Amino acid sequence: MMPIHPPFASWLRSGNTITQQFLALGGRPEVVSLAGGLPAAELYPEEEIRAAADRALTRWGTAILEYGPVEGLPALREAIAARLRTQTGCGFGVENVLLTTGAMQGLDLVGKTLLERGDRVLAQCPAYLGALDAWRPWQPGYEKLDWSEKSVETVAALRRAKFAYVVPNYSNPTGVLVPQSQRLALLAKVQATGTWLLEDDPYHCLRFEGEPQPDILSSAAADGGGTYSAPVIYLGTFSKSIAPGMRVGWAVGSVPAIRQLALAKQSTDMCSSLLTQAVALELVERNFDVEHAKRIVPVYRERRDALCNEAAQQLGEWFEWERPPGGMFVWLRAKDPGIDTDVLYEYALKENVAFVPGSVFDPFGRDHSAMRLNFTRSAPEVIREGVRRLAVAMRAYVDSGLRSARAGAGV
Amino acid sequence: MMPIHPPFASWLRSGNTITQQFLALGGRPEVVSLAGGLPAAELYPEEEIRAAADRALTRWGTAILEYGPVEGLPALREAIAARLRTQTGCGFGVENVLLTTGAMQGLDLVGKTLLERGDRVLAQCPAYLGALDAWRPWQPGYEKLDWSEKSVETVAALRRAKFAYVVPNYSNPTGVLVPQSQRLALLAKVQATGTWLLEDDPYHCLRFEGEPQPDILSSAAADGGGTYSAPVIYLGTFSKSIAPGMRVGWAVGSVPAIRQLALAKQSTDMCSSLLTQAVALELVERNFDVEHAKRIVPVYRERRDALCNEAAQQLGEWFEWERPPGGMFVWLRAKDPGIDTDVLYEYALKENVAFVPGSVFDPFGRDHSAMRLNFTRSAPEVIREGVRRLAVAMRAYVDSGLRSARAGAGV
Repeated sequence: MMPIHPPFASWLRSGNTITQQFLALGGRPEVVSLAGGLPAAELYPEEEIRAAADRALTRWGTAILEYGPVEGLPALREAIAARLRTQTGCGFGVENVLLTTGAMQGLDLVGKTLLERGDRVLAQCPAYLGALDAWRPWQPGYEKLDWSEKSVETVAALRRAKFAYVVPNYSNPTGVLVPQSQRLALLAKVQATGTWLLEDDPYHCLRFEGEPQPDILSSAAADGGGTYSAPVIYLGTFSKSIAPGMRVGWAVGSVPAIRQLALAKQSTDMCSSLLTQAVALELVERNFDVEHAKRIVPVYRERRDALCNEAAQQLGEWFEWERPPGGMFVWLRAKDPGIDTDVLYEYALKENVAFVPGSVFDPFGRDHSAMRLNFTRSAPEVIREGVRRLAVAMRAYVDSGLRSARAGAGV
Repeated sequence: MMPIHPPFASWLRSGNTITQQFLALGGRPEVVSLAGGLPAAELYPEEEIRAAADRALTRWGTAILEYGPVEGLPALREAIAARLRTQTGCGFGVENVLLTTGAMQGLDLVGKTLLERGDRVLAQCPAYLGALDAWRPWQPGYEKLDWSEKSVETVAALRRAKFAYVVPNYSNPTGVLVPQSQRLALLAKVQATGTWLLEDDPYHCLRFEGEPQPDILSSAAADGGGTYSAPVIYLGTFSKSIAPGMRVGWAVGSVPAIRQLALAKQSTDMCSSLLTQAVALELVERNFDVEHAKRIVPVYRERRDALCNEAAQQLGEWFEWERPPGGMFVWLRAKDPGIDTDVLYEYALKENVAFVPGSVFDPFGRDHSAMRLNFTRSAPEVIREGVRRLAVAMRAYVDSGLRSARAGAGV
């Protein structure tokens, strides 16, 4: 008899497999995927990256083929700190910046650095699935953040929590832009209670219209005087403004926070690749990422409008949504509480269209009434076709009496 | 009054800060560092990597600027699997290979995948510091592996452990090459008990003389028939054969093991950079890593001999060691149990030479009688100067009556 291996860690049983499903759908060209959170691949700056890689090797030679400092290439950390100094007037330096393998690793490192098993996290809900994934090993208890400025309950919840987690700019999955008054109210409560605040900001550069709202980090820094010592830990990334395959993101925080995050990173992967960091540096020094985002924005705006306009014609009977002022997603909420988007998903796959059911973004797993549609990956005509297929799926679901497609087939 | 932030996770207080100290020493040119585990930077193949980056972008275009599959670039996974098929005759495929950010991330992912807090690990001791670091968040209990073939205690210890951890090729820190008979005896016990076996093999290509001993993975695969289903999880890296700054390593395992490691990786950083993986692929397809290792080996062999010969003249009075048949380190053990290498380290820094005190490699923190010297980083004349300084430090330590330099200075 074959011996049974010792079991895998228990948190893996709570893990999400939907991300891998979506990645697999990418290999089926007949499926229109409105599911993933992928940028428009045709806008990745291939030639600029090729030239930057060549320049970086000439500039640094074998120095970027070494193990890096745990915190990452000092010149790129300084370039990021310099931007923060210009924005805020606060004395950010390399010691406030840690480079990560995308902002996703920042989420992992914050969990590793702050959470003990069962600790509480006060989260903007619905919440980014990747963050929920990153923290599963610690099995935190979640509470839902109430953004309203007068909330007394938020203060009590912050006192119970290790940290608050927010995506104030074009949040994933909802696309919401949190107004400055609510940001400042939360910051004041965080400062009063001494809790950490994790500001995750991957969509910063994807503003389609309206005024930008200052990052909470910037507001916290403005209060902080000469050096940065506030409880806001900020995560940024070049995944949207250059390309995700670079895997270059960064965390900004006070010196004690960055020092602990670096210890966690050392024990996670020693350091990220200096080569990709040096390529990013070439682009950042030329302000390429900022300029490139300006070329991306009108393309995404058009795609957002294509999705929202087609949805208004096809799905308005059953769903409602706001047109997001930026980001990558539209969040559709069912008008009828009998509609279950986990069930709709089965019908959608039969029509060769995919979306993300809202339940995966709910830390409590209770909300089955919404879905997230991505508009950045595909051309407008593909998006419109996807929405039309979704309407066909929805009609079939309604005609079944809102029954599971599997149940309906007697399986 | 400033509020106190919630505390950092408790495991960070047990973290090692010595790695960061060593990295900082790299910035002090007056110090001869025999401490780190760094390759010879002058051998990094800068021009080959530049050309490979250019070819990779031409070959793959924007496809390598995307988020990758969690498991990494399929073509590189296939190239690694193909080598394993040739070596073993076993049907390794892409599904048995996960790419990681260096082998260091493999250690982190194995911990995340297998360990619950307080689980036991049966480890070859002294053990690689990076592995001890990677698993600190889970605070495992360690037991020392007895390699002797007849050991009955090993079977009982394997039954208690989640996995056994070994570095059979030129182990870090000892440089030991474990003989095939002991490898096979351990494998048999692992298979009998059903425990996982983690084989960490970063120094595979650094063989200076003697016959190579087959990887335990290969022996396990030979038993396994058509597909690989054995309990050995193997970690490899291109850090020694190409350059550490690539941060490309890999894990090999059964399909269930790789599937769980991929879930853990997804929640850690989503995926590593396809760009650096595609660069590695260009080199691996041309067998460059294997050929390049042949150019590295004679350089390292000469440096090992420079270190061992100078140490025989300068340190033989106090220490003994074996000349390692490969790898990057010589492990010196004190003849006098009164010698404490943690204390010697204070004297060494005064003489501008650094090494790694043996205590950091002991999971129990008890062994203060040894030290690890690296011979790969520096030219032979620098190594000899380092050993001479170490002898001066040792003489001062002995003359003090083996007292702490700090105590001796009345501080």
